[in-house]
This record gives sequence, C-alpha cells and structure tokens, in this order.
Amino acid sequence: MKAPFFNAPIFRQLIEFKSSTYTYIIGCHKTGKAVIIDPVVDTVSRDIQIIRDLNLDLIYGLNTHVHADHITGTNSLKTVFPTMKSVLSSKSGGEADKYVSDGEIIEIGGLKLEVRETPGHTNGCLTYVEHSLRSAFTGDALLIRACGRTDFQQGNPASLFDSVHDKIFTLPEDYVVYVGHNYNGVLQTTVWEEKNLNPRLTKSKDQFVEIMKNLKLNYPKQIDKAVPANMVDGKGH
Amino acid sequence: MKAPFFNAPIFRQLIEFKSSTYTYIIGCHKTGKAVIIDPVVDTVSRDIQIIRDLNLDLIYGLNTHVHADHITGTNSLKTVFPTMKSVLSSKSGGEADKYVSDGEIIEIGGLKLEVRETPGHTNGCLTYVEHSLRSAFTGDALLIRACGRTDFQQGNPASLFDSVHDKIFTLPEDYVVYVGHNYNGVLQTTVWEEKNLNPRLTKSKDQFVEIMKNLKLNYPKQIDKAVPANMVDGKGH
Ligand SMILES: [Fe+2]
Ligand SMILES: [Fe+2]
Repeated sequence: MKAPFFNAPIFRQLIEFKSSTYTYIIGCHKTGKAVIIDPVVDTVSRDIQIIRDLNLDLIYGLNTHVHADHITGTNSLKTVFPTMKSVLSSKSGGEADKYVSDGEIIEIGGLKLEVRETPGHTNGCLTYVEHSLRSAFTGDALLIRACGRTDFQQGNPASLFDSVHDKIFTLPEDYVVYVGHNYNGVLQTTVWEEKNLNPRLTKSKDQFVEIMKNLKLNYPKQIDKAVPANMVDGKGH
Repeated sequence: MKAPFFNAPIFRQLIEFKSSTYTYIIGCHKTGKAVIIDPVVDTVSRDIQIIRDLNLDLIYGLNTHVHADHITGTNSLKTVFPTMKSVLSSKSGGEADKYVSDGEIIEIGGLKLEVRETPGHTNGCLTYVEHSLRSAFTGDALLIRACGRTDFQQGNPASLFDSVHDKIFTLPEDYVVYVGHNYNGVLQTTVWEEKNLNPRLTKSKDQFVEIMKNLKLNYPKQIDKAVPANMVDGKGH
C-alpha cells in the first residue's frame, strides 16, 4: 500500500457519539508526521485504522486536559504505535510522556502547534494553535456559544474568563475554533463568532462568574471513573 | 451586527444525529452568498441561526437526492429565507424550484458548484464538486468505505458502480469527499482512500453487483414518511 499523495496538510475531525467528544488528527503532508488531539478510548480502533490507512507516523497523542467525561485513548494508541508520546500540560497534575507549557511549539513535520495555557475549566487546560491552518483547538476552555463548566476538578470561572479573552479572543477573528465537545451537531466556530455571539463570554467578568456559578448542572456520569483513569494517561483501559 | 470578515470561503459541516445525516453550508466570503446541501427538517432551526449569525445570503437549498431516511429542511428554510430556491436533479421526479443536470455550474458568488449526475442509489442522485475547495459532495452515491444502498427507490448497483468510477474516482486523488451519512463519527474521506480502500468499490463491477444484492438490510424506518414528503420538497413539515 503506497501512502496517499496530498498537497495540503492532512486534517480530520472525528466525533465520539456517547460523550459528543471531538477528536482531531493533524498531519504534515510532506513528512507524514501526525498528532491526534483528544482521542477517546471507545473510538480508538477507528482512529488507528484512519492513521494506518493514511500511512501516518503518529508522533504525539495530545490531551487538551484531564477529561472528566470520557477515558482518553492515548494509552491504547501507545500499544499500537509504540513511538507515540502522550502529551499533557505541565500544570495538569496527570501522567504523560511529555509535558508542555505556555508558548512552547510542538513540531509536526512542517506544521507547528503553539501551546497556549487556558486554565479555568481545569488547571491544566491547553489550547493548541496552528497558525498556517488558521485554527485553534480549544478543548473545553471555549465551546460553541458556550464554555466548559467550572464546578468540578479545579474549575475557576474568573480564570476561565481571562484565559478565553487573553489567549483565544486575541487571535485573528477569522481563525477557526475547533472545540472539545458540542451537543447540537455543530462542528466548528470562529474567533469572530464567539467574541461577538457567545452568550456567556460577551458579558463582563463579574456577570460571567455569576452565570457560571448558577448553571446548576448534573454531576457528570463518567467523572468518578474517567478522572482517575485520565490522571494515569488512560492506563488499564 | 456587522458581518464577519473572512479571508477564505466559508464552509460548515453539520450533523443531524437521528439519521446521521451531514448538512453542509458553503459560502463565498467576498459576496456573502451561500448554499446549504441536504438540510434536515429536525435541525433546520440550528442551521437558520448559523446562516443569520454569519450574515449569509442563502440563495439555494440543494438536495443531493430524494432522501428516504429524513425529511428535507428546504421547505422550512424557504419560509425563513423567501428568496432561497430549492434545487433537485432534473431526473429526480421530485418537486423543486430549480432543476439541474450533468455538467451545469451553480454559481455561489465567486464559488462554482459543478453538478455531476451519479445515479444508482436513486435515479436523481447528484454529486456536487467545488474545484477551488478541492471537494466533492457525494450524497449517498459514495459513502466512507461504503456506498448508498440500492434495494429501494430506483436503486441499481450496476449504474451506481459506473457513477462512482466515472464521475467521482476520476477526480484528483487528494479531493476531499464529503458524504451524506456516516454512522461511525467519521466526517470526511478522500478520492484516494475510496479508490484504494473502499471494500465494495475496489471490486469488479460483477462482484460489486453481487455484494449489493446480498446486503440484507432492514427496511428503512422513516422511508414511508420521508419519501412522499421529500417528493414535494418537504412541504407540510
Ligand atoms: Fe472537560
Ligand atoms: Fe439516500
């Protein structure tokens, strides 16, 4: 099987239906090097097949944060692609092969993923920016017309407000925002849309904090299983 | 509300979870003109909101074919955007404001959607190709590692085989293929992948016909409601 010819970076968005999680595969078409962002253990065999079909060299499995709603697929991926390294924020408190911090650049062949720390949903939340793709991968910091909750793990609405305003809304307005979840079947948004239309993040910081304190959300179904598993990189799953 | 500034064509893929249908919004960033492909009545209010948020001028609502698994949202869209015209294949037998045939070009501001007739799943199946986006929208003619079924409506496996080979596999191999449905959370494929990896369409024509005759699929749940509704452009829904 020869590798496919592509004349532009390889980009795949994927959805895991149970937790409505988005997974992303980003590859350099010149070198075949690739990363996966937020793989889910339930759909990891699908993702492995795509990586094999496209003959990609998977170098990193990145988690935007220690997830509470699904178990990461990074450990499963490592058993199939032994040279892949799992990546987490140095502030996450979780286990990983490689830790990254604000301002660092992760090279994927000719592509460059810029690491931006965007705490508030958890302490270790990261947003990844790929400028040549004019895209940001925000995990649960910024969602489509919403944002990650701040009522468990190390949730802090004031710090989430600052993260989004200082690290995401400062990007060019046409940048596409690829989020961690969406429950309405919407797959992407833009910096412009969220800056102008996000019902929470267009409010003042005080109002935002008030909104986030009064969401009255249900206790997440998978949290007691998912967080301990994800703190050790999905080991045992 | 000012319209957002974009420096590249506007493209949105959306998913309707009940029927796993993909809807697409394609817009010209210079003129704001846009079309929607395969809107679903159940998610049409979501799509209307996106079109309004992006301040798009929706000129056409295109159905790749008369669907059997969901009711089209074109009629609902026309009540909200009265200048929008619904579009179907001239060979579909269904009602629409505008009919198109093989080789026609639908202009969306500076974008050009080329119409390719790809019958076999139904008589009126169309594939739309936008060459500047290096993308093809195949409806149910070609699916990811699969294809539309040929055991109802005007299904004909031999003609589906020819459609895919003559009208889709002849595109450049890096063209992204955006399909009508996927049940595994995969959002896109490429001409290269399906030409090389599609388990049905890499077979000979005779073998393909044999495979399609022996799929033993369930009778589609919504067909008795969906087909009559879609033959009249979703009117009454
Ligand atoms: Fe989360
Ligand atoms: Fe269909």
